[in-house]
Amino acid sequence: MRWIGIDPGLRITGFGVIDVEGQKLTYVASGTIESGDPAKGLPERLGALYTGIKEVIDTYQPQAAAIEEVFLNVNPRSTLMLGQARGAVIAALVAAKLPVDEFSALRVKQSIVGTGRAAKPQVQEMVKRLLRLSRAPGADASDALGVAICAAHHAHIPKAISSALATKKRSK
Amino acid sequence: MRWIGIDPGLRITGFGVIDVEGQKLTYVASGTIESGDPAKGLPERLGALYTGIKEVIDTYQPQAAAIEEVFLNVNPRSTLMLGQARGAVIAALVAAKLPVDEFSALRVKQSIVGTGRAAKPQVQEMVKRLLRLSRAPGADASDALGVAICAAHHAHIPKAISSALATKKRSK
Repeated sequence: MRWIGIDPGLRITGFGVIDVEGQKLTYVASGTIESGDPAKGLPERLGALYTGIKEVIDTYQPQAAAIEEVFLNVNPRSTLMLGQARGAVIAALVAAKLPVDEFSALRVKQSIVGTGRAAKPQVQEMVKRLLRLSRAPGADASDALGVAICAAHHAHIPKAISSALATKKRSK
Repeated sequence: MRWIGIDPGLRITGFGVIDVEGQKLTYVASGTIESGDPAKGLPERLGALYTGIKEVIDTYQPQAAAIEEVFLNVNPRSTLMLGQARGAVIAALVAAKLPVDEFSALRVKQSIVGTGRAAKPQVQEMVKRLLRLSRAPGADASDALGVAICAAHHAHIPKAISSALATKKRSK
């Protein structure tokens, strides 16, 4: 099963592709897509993100996608911009007929590092180890690989156990 | 020249298609796309908007697109949701290689009714008159037709005059 993970952003969107075979995770590719000069206008920048994700999908042919949920920024305009970027990216994923799961940053960190309070360098280090890489990819690509790993872990847990865990957590 | 105008929304997105020949505007089609049951999950709902817009484009083959800018909602989560819907819709437009212009609701109202303070029913009434329709389409479709008419008006004004008007307005 090949997963693509996405860390969405208007300026830079990170992506990471991994293969999952039982418990074994294998790195396939990762990188970033930049929407380019802000002077270009929003539709063109969203188009760059859409096309970039489409090209990554065409190249690596993932079978499922996972995308990070986004924070509500204190600046409403930033929230709107980030929302539009995320919408364009999700459109590219569903246009390619990929099922799309969403995970919060907290959940990704819990899945990768074991605690939701992990710092970025810890996520990068664990992504590097879990995928047996000689060096950690950049922060955006690492985050995206983290989302893909989280999705793979989650998909591996039968639904009944997963919801039992959620219930347990809520009752604490 | 055939324009598609869009009034984006997560629950309902309005669209309107018009033909423009010099000063003459001709109604082609209008309607709404619904993202369906909120329980379906965001990616699927954004997928419904993306696919719906794609189908409208495939059917009516517009040559240019215009989309309404969105308000920053007082609720940040609503702003984020609306942003994602708008991002998915813009992705569908740029995926179809349409140039996309953006217009504020104020600008659309000024263009259609002559004042930015116009109420919705006034916009519906003027859209009906300008397109010589026997009855006004629904609010979302009328807004979308209004965006298309605004874009057609705007495209008709040479850039130099348009920026002179903007300068005059600022200096008031």
